[in-house]
Parts: sequence; structure tokens; C-alpha cells
Amino acid sequence: MRDGPFDSLIKVLARLPGLGPRSAQRIALHLLTGKGKTLEPLIAALIQTRETIRACEICGNLDLASPCRICQDTKRARRALCIVAGVADLWAIERTGAYRDQYHVLGGVLSALDGIGPDDLSIGPLLSRIRENPPAEIILALSATVDGQATAHYLTDRIGDVAGMKITRLAHGVPVGGELDYLDDGTIITALKSRASL
Amino acid sequence: MRDGPFDSLIKVLARLPGLGPRSAQRIALHLLTGKGKTLEPLIAALIQTRETIRACEICGNLDLASPCRICQDTKRARRALCIVAGVADLWAIERTGAYRDQYHVLGGVLSALDGIGPDDLSIGPLLSRIRENPPAEIILALSATVDGQATAHYLTDRIGDVAGMKITRLAHGVPVGGELDYLDDGTIITALKSRASL
Repeated sequence: MRDGPFDSLIKVLARLPGLGPRSAQRIALHLLTGKGKTLEPLIAALIQTRETIRACEICGNLDLASPCRICQDTKRARRALCIVAGVADLWAIERTGAYRDQYHVLGGVLSALDGIGPDDLSIGPLLSRIRENPPAEIILALSATVDGQATAHYLTDRIGDVAGMKITRLAHGVPVGGELDYLDDGTIITALKSRASL
Repeated sequence: MRDGPFDSLIKVLARLPGLGPRSAQRIALHLLTGKGKTLEPLIAALIQTRETIRACEICGNLDLASPCRICQDTKRARRALCIVAGVADLWAIERTGAYRDQYHVLGGVLSALDGIGPDDLSIGPLLSRIRENPPAEIILALSATVDGQATAHYLTDRIGDVAGMKITRLAHGVPVGGELDYLDDGTIITALKSRASL
């Protein structure tokens, strides 16, 4: 029956992103009925991850070492500093191979609704980093959402004018492979305004 | 970066029902970035569940004890035996409070596609149980899917004729609160054929 340890497990699972009480129960039952024998590997993987993965003291990336491999990599340029909301965004940019400079992970975006203020994000360390070692360019690689853009504005204000440093943001427009028909009006208007000559 | 222990964790998570590589990465990052501090409670809940929850030796239900509380409950009737595919189905029926007899959990349904044969299910123990202690009624509470119905037919054959015992299945028809408009043809045809007089 659903109580005691089993119910606690369902409650913990249901707090994970993308899961609810129903899917959490399904996963808990799957783990316990031994189909696929995932309970032991899951416990082992969680414990091993907890023991070995740490947040980079410089950029906030997750890695086996701190400073992380990106910050330690002497072959990477230090010209630009790319500011991302989360580690998943950092990985998405790394996956493209199109950027070979430094990162800074904020750990989220400002959100009045979720009660996330500047002190909840890695903004203090970012400002110190910029002060101590001003890059030639800061790239605000934040989501094109209201919160993401508010965070970008806030950061631009806080960073202020540093001689010789420019602040940029990712381009907005039609996603590559995207069909106009399915795009929202905001994207089409932005893409029209920022149209490029051929 | 995604490798070593972190990648193993994502792979284990992605094998859970309802999760894929993308949602597994999202969950793994959520666990590690410490938002909501779910990593420790999750490890603790998994270990506690592993240590305390066991499958009932009689019916296959999951509980803190074996035999489970349903099998041990002397106040429950022993007239009927309700056969379900999984523990989730047992819980769904228990939740209604409409059934107060015994259960037997098969641990799945026969499926040629998934390579699940009679030996993979708890059919041998079920037949011994019926032989040793024939109930007055066997209720086949299996899903109205092709595999569920094939399993019901197979079980009816294997159980055979036992004097004084009847074998029933759940009624098929329009779900309570269901709109005809959204129902599939099969359900409407079944509901018409099995129509009840007022």
C-alpha cells in the first residue's frame, strides 16, 4: 500500500521537474517491481554523482573538478564572457562548437513571480570577475522570455560602462528550419525589423 | 561537462518510464544544482524504500510486510479473487473502496511484441492458489487492450472449470463522465451491445 517509505519516495520524485504525482508513482513502481532492475543502478549513479560532481568556483559549470575543464583550458580564448542562465544552456552552446571563450552561469533568471532576486543568482561573483579581469565582450545568452530579457537589462545596468568592453545579446529571428507559418507574431516582427541585406 | 558519473546518471534516469534523454538531463541538472535540495532526500527515500518495501509472497502487492496487509486482514472477505496486471491497478481498485476481497498481481500482461510469456508472469502461483483455495469468483480486472484481453482469455483457459467458481471480467462501456463524441467506435459499439434496461 501507498504509505511510509513508498509514499515519501513518490513525494520526492513528484518534486522533480516535469514529474507529477501520477508519473512519480509510475516511476516508483517501476523501480520497485524490479523491471529493468533500475533501482540499484539509480542509487549508485546518484551517490557517485554526489561524490564526484562539483560546481566550478569560477563559472558555475558542473564538472569533475573545480575550476572546471573550460576554465582550466589554456587553449580557450579569454576575449569574451558568455553569460547563461543555467548549465544546460552552457552545454547547448558548447555542443555547437561555435564558441570557444569563457562562460558564467547565473543559476537562473530574475523572476518577480518566483521570488528570484539578484541575490539568488551568481551576479556578485560575475561583477567581481568582470572588475578583476574585464573581457573584451560580454555576450548575454539568455532566453528570449520576459524574465530572461529583464535579467539581461538588469545585468547591462549593473555591469555599466567598462572602457573597451561591449555587451551583446543573441540575435532574435526566425529559427533555422523554422516555418514562418508556425511562428508567433513577436518573432516575425523582430525578424522583419532586424532583416539583413543579401 | 556531460561525461563520467553525470552521463551515467542521465542514462539511468532516461530508462525510467515516461522519461527520455532530454527530461533525464533536466532532472539530473535539477538534482545537482541544488535547487529544492532534492538529491539527498531522493537518495534517502530510494534507500529506505529498498530496505523496507517487499513484494507480498501471496498476492504480489508491495507493502512493508509480507504477507501484505490486504492478505493479512482477517476482516476482508475471501469470496472473490481479483486478478490485476500490476500493483498500480490494485491500488486504483483499493482507492475506490468498492472491493473488499482478495487480489492477485500478475506483474504484467502477456505480450508477443514485448516477448512476455506466461513464465514471466505470476501465473503458476495464481493457479496453485486457486487449486489450494478455490474462490467463489475470479474477477479478471485487466486493461481493455489487445494484450490485456489476450491475457484474460489465456487465464480463463488455464484456470479451466472449477466446480462452483465463476470467472468474470470488468464491464466495458462509456466511462462515467465520458462524452460520447470523444469515445472511440469500439467503446460505443460495446456499450450499445451491452446496453442495460432502465
